[in-house]
Amino acid sequence: MLEYDGTKYRGWQEQLNARSVMGDLRRAAEEVFGAEVELQGSGRTDAGVHAAGQVAHLRVRTRVSRPTALLEAELNERLPADIAVLEMAEADNRFHARHDAITRSYVYQISTRKSAFSKKYVWWVKEPLNVELMAEAAAKLGGRHDFRCFRALDPSKPDESTVVVVEKAEVERQDHLVLFRIEASHFLWRMVRRLAGVLVRLGRGQMTMADFDRLLRGESDAKLDVAAWTAPAAGLFLEEVRYREVAVEKRKKS
Amino acid sequence: MLEYDGTKYRGWQEQLNARSVMGDLRRAAEEVFGAEVELQGSGRTDAGVHAAGQVAHLRVRTRVSRPTALLEAELNERLPADIAVLEMAEADNRFHARHDAITRSYVYQISTRKSAFSKKYVWWVKEPLNVELMAEAAAKLGGRHDFRCFRALDPSKPDESTVVVVEKAEVERQDHLVLFRIEASHFLWRMVRRLAGVLVRLGRGQMTMADFDRLLRGESDAKLDVAAWTAPAAGLFLEEVRYREVAVEKRKKS
Repeated sequence: MLEYDGTKYRGWQEQLNARSVMGDLRRAAEEVFGAEVELQGSGRTDAGVHAAGQVAHLRVRTRVSRPTALLEAELNERLPADIAVLEMAEADNRFHARHDAITRSYVYQISTRKSAFSKKYVWWVKEPLNVELMAEAAAKLGGRHDFRCFRALDPSKPDESTVVVVEKAEVERQDHLVLFRIEASHFLWRMVRRLAGVLVRLGRGQMTMADFDRLLRGESDAKLDVAAWTAPAAGLFLEEVRYREVAVEKRKKS
Repeated sequence: MLEYDGTKYRGWQEQLNARSVMGDLRRAAEEVFGAEVELQGSGRTDAGVHAAGQVAHLRVRTRVSRPTALLEAELNERLPADIAVLEMAEADNRFHARHDAITRSYVYQISTRKSAFSKKYVWWVKEPLNVELMAEAAAKLGGRHDFRCFRALDPSKPDESTVVVVEKAEVERQDHLVLFRIEASHFLWRMVRRLAGVLVRLGRGQMTMADFDRLLRGESDAKLDVAAWTAPAAGLFLEEVRYREVAVEKRKKS
């Protein structure tokens, strides 16, 4: 399990000519193991998006005799300050960080005031927010819906279904923060940031619950330019990845 | 009341040829009021030290008709992202942020693991810490003591008394953080960072409680080079400034 501040990265996934979290992790791991590593995360996070609980597996074709705690410390020494390995464990050979994951949870952080310490981690919304209304709308996201109005078209998946089953969604206030949490098996591209943008728009009184309901039924509306309301990447965190018990057993078998 | 990330500042106090929090605040305030302002904080914080609850008063010799909430918003717009005004209120003309303060509280944040989000706000201690022993030592700091072993000589106050009455001091664990809190009417230069450094040294088993007791009796020991153990500025926050009820009444009279 690892956390990272995504501000300086062009996302999780390795790519040519751009700095990625996975690329930095691979470089550090190959130094520590002195061998090529196969690396796979539970899923991608976009440029500027953070993770508090990303899960990845790595596979090395070499004999490793050092204890995991030492490998973890060596990795953290070599990784930049904005990537931290929180927990490292020997896994069953069949464990796959992406295929075995059953849900991913994201949290989007909105701040209702300026904060000197967290510009990189929140979206500061200056207008008053009706948080109760936002919570009511978030609660409607649970279940099976067509999220076509809340996604950006992913050029790599032109035929992707826009139906997603949301396990849980909620909005809660925590001091000066308004937190939007959502858990699902998978998400469409930009979906969480577009949902966060629409919830804020609703909370500001710039759209009605009826508008929101229409979008959630998959009825797009030219007046409601959802794409323009995509919430900034800075407020978004991949918070947790859940695995089947069996998978966790596999992962923790050591 | 304001908070700031002290990383890029040479401390609170205005000075020639160096960026200070007070200097940035004065510039922003003079723009907002369109007049010279007299500005005074509850006390100084050193270079790199943060504040979550600094208090300052400002005085303008001009008629101000805009409401305080608007002035606060305008100040925050003009201040850099790492300084935030949290609360602004009209004060009695006799209120003085420094003279009326009765105690200042600091918190020093030690992290027992790497954290991707808070390098600027914690001291990451990699060795295991005996937090119970640190808490026991911190509890002894309460009351009247001669802190001559825990201060740096302030050239501007060569004859300063080294006796300080500590209202409260404690060490507590909070997830992967170890927090050292201390409240007193005033502090000697570098005192909180030297105390934090000594507590960590004790927690690591690199000095004994008997050594600690000796230092707290004001008996310096060449073997225990306290100055070399000054904890880094990044972990330190001015957390709260307390005022006499009367002073608060004055401040809030509006």
